[in-house]
Amino acid sequence: MNHIGRLFQINIYGESHGGGVGILLDGVKPGIPLTEEDFLLDLSRRKAGGLGTTPRIEADEVHIISGVFNGYTTGAPILLSFVNTNTKSKDYSNLIDQPRPSHADYTAHIKYDGYNDYRGGGHFSGRLTLGLVSAGVVAKKMLKGVTFHTSLTNLNGCEDQSKFQSILKEAVENKDSVGGIVTLTATGLPVGLGEPYFDSLESTIAHLMFSVGGVKGIEFGIGFDGVGLKGSEFNDKIIDSKGTTLSNNNGGINGGISNGNPIVVKVFVKPTPSIGLKQETYNFRDDKVKSLEIEGRHDAAIILRAMVVLEACLAIALCDANLIRNAYKK
Amino acid sequence: MNHIGRLFQINIYGESHGGGVGILLDGVKPGIPLTEEDFLLDLSRRKAGGLGTTPRIEADEVHIISGVFNGYTTGAPILLSFVNTNTKSKDYSNLIDQPRPSHADYTAHIKYDGYNDYRGGGHFSGRLTLGLVSAGVVAKKMLKGVTFHTSLTNLNGCEDQSKFQSILKEAVENKDSVGGIVTLTATGLPVGLGEPYFDSLESTIAHLMFSVGGVKGIEFGIGFDGVGLKGSEFNDKIIDSKGTTLSNNNGGINGGISNGNPIVVKVFVKPTPSIGLKQETYNFRDDKVKSLEIEGRHDAAIILRAMVVLEACLAIALCDANLIRNAYKK
Amino acid sequence: MNHIGRLFQINIYGESHGGGVGILLDGVKPGIPLTEEDFLLDLSRRKAGGLGTTPRIEADEVHIISGVFNGYTTGAPILLSFVNTNTKSKDYSNLIDQPRPSHADYTAHIKYDGYNDYRGGGHFSGRLTLGLVSAGVVAKKMLKGVTFHTSLTNLNGCEDQSKFQSILKEAVENKDSVGGIVTLTATGLPVGLGEPYFDSLESTIAHLMFSVGGVKGIEFGIGFDGVGLKGSEFNDKIIDSKGTTLSNNNGGINGGISNGNPIVVKVFVKPTPSIGLKQETYNFRDDKVKSLEIEGRHDAAIILRAMVVLEACLAIALCDANLIRNAYKK
Amino acid sequence: MNHIGRLFQINIYGESHGGGVGILLDGVKPGIPLTEEDFLLDLSRRKAGGLGTTPRIEADEVHIISGVFNGYTTGAPILLSFVNTNTKSKDYSNLIDQPRPSHADYTAHIKYDGYNDYRGGGHFSGRLTLGLVSAGVVAKKMLKGVTFHTSLTNLNGCEDQSKFQSILKEAVENKDSVGGIVTLTATGLPVGLGEPYFDSLESTIAHLMFSVGGVKGIEFGIGFDGVGLKGSEFNDKIIDSKGTTLSNNNGGINGGISNGNPIVVKVFVKPTPSIGLKQETYNFRDDKVKSLEIEGRHDAAIILRAMVVLEACLAIALCDANLIRNAYKK
Repeated sequence: MNHIGRLFQINIYGESHGGGVGILLDGVKPGIPLTEEDFLLDLSRRKAGGLGTTPRIEADEVHIISGVFNGYTTGAPILLSFVNTNTKSKDYSNLIDQPRPSHADYTAHIKYDGYNDYRGGGHFSGRLTLGLVSAGVVAKKMLKGVTFHTSLTNLNGCEDQSKFQSILKEAVENKDSVGGIVTLTATGLPVGLGEPYFDSLESTIAHLMFSVGGVKGIEFGIGFDGVGLKGSEFNDKIIDSKGTTLSNNNGGINGGISNGNPIVVKVFVKPTPSIGLKQETYNFRDDKVKSLEIEGRHDAAIILRAMVVLEACLAIALCDANLIRNAYKK
Repeated sequence: MNHIGRLFQINIYGESHGGGVGILLDGVKPGIPLTEEDFLLDLSRRKAGGLGTTPRIEADEVHIISGVFNGYTTGAPILLSFVNTNTKSKDYSNLIDQPRPSHADYTAHIKYDGYNDYRGGGHFSGRLTLGLVSAGVVAKKMLKGVTFHTSLTNLNGCEDQSKFQSILKEAVENKDSVGGIVTLTATGLPVGLGEPYFDSLESTIAHLMFSVGGVKGIEFGIGFDGVGLKGSEFNDKIIDSKGTTLSNNNGGINGGISNGNPIVVKVFVKPTPSIGLKQETYNFRDDKVKSLEIEGRHDAAIILRAMVVLEACLAIALCDANLIRNAYKK
Repeated sequence: MNHIGRLFQINIYGESHGGGVGILLDGVKPGIPLTEEDFLLDLSRRKAGGLGTTPRIEADEVHIISGVFNGYTTGAPILLSFVNTNTKSKDYSNLIDQPRPSHADYTAHIKYDGYNDYRGGGHFSGRLTLGLVSAGVVAKKMLKGVTFHTSLTNLNGCEDQSKFQSILKEAVENKDSVGGIVTLTATGLPVGLGEPYFDSLESTIAHLMFSVGGVKGIEFGIGFDGVGLKGSEFNDKIIDSKGTTLSNNNGGINGGISNGNPIVVKVFVKPTPSIGLKQETYNFRDDKVKSLEIEGRHDAAIILRAMVVLEACLAIALCDANLIRNAYKK
Repeated sequence: MNHIGRLFQINIYGESHGGGVGILLDGVKPGIPLTEEDFLLDLSRRKAGGLGTTPRIEADEVHIISGVFNGYTTGAPILLSFVNTNTKSKDYSNLIDQPRPSHADYTAHIKYDGYNDYRGGGHFSGRLTLGLVSAGVVAKKMLKGVTFHTSLTNLNGCEDQSKFQSILKEAVENKDSVGGIVTLTATGLPVGLGEPYFDSLESTIAHLMFSVGGVKGIEFGIGFDGVGLKGSEFNDKIIDSKGTTLSNNNGGINGGISNGNPIVVKVFVKPTPSIGLKQETYNFRDDKVKSLEIEGRHDAAIILRAMVVLEACLAIALCDANLIRNAYKK
């Protein structure tokens, strides 16, 4: 549901065109310095405005409503709230008559008996990731000594980053969209994070990441590309007393537990489903396939904005795993 | 930890060479006919013995200890237990001195302060999947009208199933191992399963599957292969009033919710880490890299036995999602 | 922690003198009509102002931030927020030097390493019950056909309601406080709510109620008063095919499951710990027992305001139990 | 449901007349010495056989099936199993026709659509407390320096322990039963256990205890007896720098958090519902109130055997709270 985490817990809320969006954090260690400025960097990484992103530019200003006192976390729940300001009152009811392909329009309509707030995707809007990014900021603060590196390693099938701008430009011009692969790395983690059997580190990281709209594939280490390797090639041989491995095909995780090497995750984010191009899809009111043209401008590549969101998911999962690990230390 | 599920809950226990392994189920609907025979088929699909699997053949006989009365489930917890019988008392302490590469030997040793049962992988042994498979049998019984199809679609990089036997033979002969990709399909599900934000169907399915040893990648629908598609190509257009889509690149899930089309999941299972071939890896007692030769015979391809386990995971996740959905029906 | 519930979930946040307080609900059925007016009645029952309650009168105006669209619940999380307006900026730091007896001042200070927001009790303030009361309003809407009756049956040891006013008056005049017993009844529930073993209806109701400040005892049915009865006297004999019982010493619950008779709970709420009277208690800064005089005016009997809060807790627990029950219907 | 705990988790299973009963523990710290002998003392405290208890004497021998290796806990789940041996195959079907008053016979029959194992109470049998007692043994081992004291302070309304034997004798002779009050104390706990808002120490202790059959009232510290006290009398004044209080009316808990003073809980356990005396109650098959005579001999006072069970519940709740507290230490 809209809650996740064993000790570091997050609860997400909001809709694209309602009162606002945000996240409620629990299990935050008291005594961590935290101000609204701390969120600026990661929120700006998620911001719209660049090539391939929507022009809907909101202040995206976080408000710390609770859980912080005199500049420090108190140990009580932290409500991080974003007010919606740029919500045009246009008519979205056509989304019910003719749901956008590959969107949640149809499934949400059925699941919630037609009562879901469908405006701009409602609770399924990418706008909710503001909360995730904010939770990630706090999680990173709780993970001392851990470094995150996140990069776009594939765009529309191309792995040459010098060509990404032209791919985006072409997609925008064609009113189409593109997907890609984000590669995330977390270094500096101790051995021992992850709780088998079911809360393997892969499980908890994937659980969070697969909740982000558009994510359709997750792999650790070499991932699917390792399918052609033999065991003798795939195995990561240990080379020193700290557990350092020669290769890192397992992505820093063995038996669901961190092994001290960098955690490596690759995430496939599908092309933005909202495109300006005409699509032939079913119109429920007219009971036939009709042409659909989605108005307005859209992210040609949501993956650009998803990068920092996925990094936040990784940090959140690791933060929770680290707290659990702490509980069992001598 | 060793518990998962909101309503349909499973708790796993056991070690390879301890008293036994098994699973404790909760949240099972009362009135489902259930006998020990019901488990035979899926347990046999998981069985060792064929080409590419270990020769450790145990009876793998399930015992229903509780929760069933007069042949029907009662609504109380069901303990499904397997006794360990074929546990040779050989010395496994070398696993501590020189952990097997890509295994949990090293991480478990550190995490559990040296107290973990390391014999045959202990709690990380593939033998624990007996419990998962058994839980899957019950889950499938609770999912009326849903059909599962599970196949090996890639072995060691090869997608031609006619060549799988020779690939396995070669791996066995070379004392090496191979990995592959399992493709799973579930058809017959209603629209509306899955609980956004965090319990998207992708999240809960992946959470369970990534807990299975050797799983290193999961994708839905076309998955990573769709990275080269434009949005206009990727989008699954709806063609009728039931929500049927022309393509199924999203794998039957939109916004984390089932859309009525087949759920399609592809899972990468790495090559068996235990191989007969010599490997150069760190020996902690001798404080240097040394040659390691793992004795005995091993699964050349654990993926063969993982197939029915992954199918069980899929069924378990869908069963839980379906119960939650029921709670909100008029 | 600050989250509870299996399907109907609530998450509480806020501090007495921070940005605000509130509650985040999840698992609410879509399609329930809900406006801010719906909360007025129960919020007014909790209001300060009468004899024996504090004069801090805030608007206590609920804001529905998310999860409601066109006047109906959407199935997405509902954030119910209250802004703090009447927060005097007086100095509360003396609470650290000399914690108020029977308050959370000392325990919170230690637990949160001195970082807790201690102003007006912070996260432990009775003001947080605004959120609980609001959650109760929604829970009651989801429990069709269930009637709640809540009354003060004992004040300061007196069971004669005609004397309650004079007891309160005396307590106010003496700058002292009094406790009492609230008796709650819920009628109209079906047989079958409650999930043994651990989520017996008594367990889930008590869990919620014991989270409310000041609650120190909970009993079901005849409760402790039944200690002198023999089994032959205590047993509730069934008298008809609907399961109606002659007596209701078990408070409508057998084996942790509702039996169709009224649920009866009695709750002891201790006297308000904040009193105007001088108290001799330890001063940590001066390292000796000193006289403490708590300034301002206080609730002489928090139980007056706790009544609707406890009713909300009962409704929340029953609502969750009812949803789980639904999941297993035919 | 049949699972409880955030870090120290327990899962209960079994029926009175099925294959056995037991408990599956998770979240146990590795490295704790544990043998089957460790359970003998507490299991003997729960044993039948004395005056006022049933003569059903089973070996009650615990079997450690998993999670222990070389005499130490491993960190993996511990299955503690008890085999049922003394299960007479008598006919219990009359319990469906004429449910025993104040028992779970009727509610379980309705809840589980008639599929519940009703023999000897099935999953509701007191025999399941074997698992709870065993979990308590492990919990106590994890709580170093904590001492438990549990005593029967009221039997059938009498607080004079010298008269308890004659009360029991009379109840047995009259084929009737009696209830009472158990007073439990835990000393040696640090300040800071308990997780507000919802996991106050009172909440988690009560949650566990109210799951035990027959428990109908729980109070902390002075409890209901404090209803006549004024705030000035009830408040526990702190007298030293360690937080020691002069009185302990709050039972060692303020704001849901342990304050370093002894935790004091009093629990009302109702008279055993199974009595030999004739009772007039509804017979569903004959559709009228009829005389019911429950055969066999019964516990005249289940409270005698419940004492160690309640102590186990207290230990389990404190153990979990202590682990969570550990997670947030420096």
